[in-house]
Amino acid sequence: MIERTYTVVGPGAVGITYGGRLLAAGADVRFLGRSDAEHLRTRGLRLESVWGDVAVDAVSASADPAELGPSDVVLVCLKTTANAALVDLLPPLVRPGTIVVMMQNGLGVEEIGAAVAGSDATVLGGLCFVCSSKVGPGHARHVDYGLVTLGEWLPSYRAAGITDAVTAVAADLEFAGVSVSPQPSLGVARWKKLVWNIPYNGLSVVLNAGTDDLMADPDARALVTDLMGEVLDGADACGHEIERSFIDKMLADTEQMTPYAPSMRLDHDEGRQLEVDAIYAAPLAAAAAAGVELPKIEALWRQLRFLDSRTAANRSPGR
Amino acid sequence: MIERTYTVVGPGAVGITYGGRLLAAGADVRFLGRSDAEHLRTRGLRLESVWGDVAVDAVSASADPAELGPSDVVLVCLKTTANAALVDLLPPLVRPGTIVVMMQNGLGVEEIGAAVAGSDATVLGGLCFVCSSKVGPGHARHVDYGLVTLGEWLPSYRAAGITDAVTAVAADLEFAGVSVSPQPSLGVARWKKLVWNIPYNGLSVVLNAGTDDLMADPDARALVTDLMGEVLDGADACGHEIERSFIDKMLADTEQMTPYAPSMRLDHDEGRQLEVDAIYAAPLAAAAAAGVELPKIEALWRQLRFLDSRTAANRSPGR
Repeated sequence: MIERTYTVVGPGAVGITYGGRLLAAGADVRFLGRSDAEHLRTRGLRLESVWGDVAVDAVSASADPAELGPSDVVLVCLKTTANAALVDLLPPLVRPGTIVVMMQNGLGVEEIGAAVAGSDATVLGGLCFVCSSKVGPGHARHVDYGLVTLGEWLPSYRAAGITDAVTAVAADLEFAGVSVSPQPSLGVARWKKLVWNIPYNGLSVVLNAGTDDLMADPDARALVTDLMGEVLDGADACGHEIERSFIDKMLADTEQMTPYAPSMRLDHDEGRQLEVDAIYAAPLAAAAAAGVELPKIEALWRQLRFLDSRTAANRSPGR
Repeated sequence: MIERTYTVVGPGAVGITYGGRLLAAGADVRFLGRSDAEHLRTRGLRLESVWGDVAVDAVSASADPAELGPSDVVLVCLKTTANAALVDLLPPLVRPGTIVVMMQNGLGVEEIGAAVAGSDATVLGGLCFVCSSKVGPGHARHVDYGLVTLGEWLPSYRAAGITDAVTAVAADLEFAGVSVSPQPSLGVARWKKLVWNIPYNGLSVVLNAGTDDLMADPDARALVTDLMGEVLDGADACGHEIERSFIDKMLADTEQMTPYAPSMRLDHDEGRQLEVDAIYAAPLAAAAAAGVELPKIEALWRQLRFLDSRTAANRSPGR
């Protein structure tokens, strides 16, 4: 049984997938959304999932965080490009003791959450290894994977060990049927995820290619490998050492994957803003602060910023 | 008056532009082409040019180099991607004393010409700073620029000084109204051209952008500048020092240019093979042999090879 109350900020693919699992397990889960809040309240949530489908008729949801009020755990499932909104969204959802879980990509997102939530909140990072996509309001499709790696955040990603807050949230998620891997070092966990995200997200956009295309071509594969090597250089410089064999594991895992369009590719195809700051700028800045240049990642970052700016310029003002 | 006889290998945009100027100046110019030879022989050559239009009714042309035989000067105006054909095309056009001018992009092309032409030939490099495009068989449009920088090749791009062969070809081209800049060091001249070609050709393809788009965006401009810096690092390592201020000059010149799609972009748009080896692989190999890595250029090279392979895979077998 799940006793802690939950608020999911952002009913996108990630929010509906994990929020839906918690709902199905009987947890008290509220959703903070914008246009989707009305839909969730009146028509409910629907999750098609490899873990079993979930359909809930009416869900507690609002576009106003004050209406929802604080809960024990807040799962921040926004895209990082929307993080500026947390200044307004997060404080009403938090009381002393609330655990804020940043279920986002990239690096540095916990610092944003911690700054907004205040010193009474405990901040975790949750890294979602999940293939799911939003199909419509309150409706997501989860087609593969689903593991959440979970670690507590300390400034500068100092290793926190496996804390009570991590154990508590992991227990709830596992009760809801979600695989969780508690992490003693959130920094290592985040840089490890960047080993995959930095090459595949960026190259899938710039080269308009799927993971299978990138793995099948010797030049793309060589570039993926070089980019992964630079991520490890950055991690090492920041004190989060990752063994070199992790690269071979990521390459082999990706080859085994169902051909997959990374989230940044989907964002680009849909004309949405790319998570360039969290996935590229923040690791580059962290590495630079530690005295290390990552030139191939920097080149890819510049290309992505160019493409993202062009998409923004082409976006209609009302969109 | 032009006394030397000329053969133009490859009646594309460059071959028609400079061959057309020589024809108009009364030179004996023959063209070696494939499908276009028949057209040149029976319907002639047409050049629309900012230097004045040229129309010649019938031109000496053949698809068989043995039929043309040797001449005093051979202008190799093929794309570098066709250089494998020189093994068959070049020997019949050369006799002792023939000057072979490699009017091509990139690095290392003279070595190919010299290997094929044999030790009796003198090999020059001619770098064409010209905006011209082929409109149809025997027909080109030259819309801007046109300068040819010309230098004699010695192994390893050792500086040759301004030699008799350079002076002779320069005199003929200038008589035909072409601006020529004789170069004491072909190596410096080729690396200087790479300062422009490496960033703008590659990024115009990968980012699907014109030179104006690249210059207007701060990230693309920063990446262009970084790539230019790496070209200078490579040139320095190979003993061809170029002053750093050359980068600012290239950036300013490009900003002044009429918005322009570099040749590689046009090749890509038309589904043609890209000049990736001559413009990227050869400079990367030369720098690596001199102990210097150029990581951003290498990343761009990998991306271009990926895109080029995909284009080749999509090309219909008959094309």
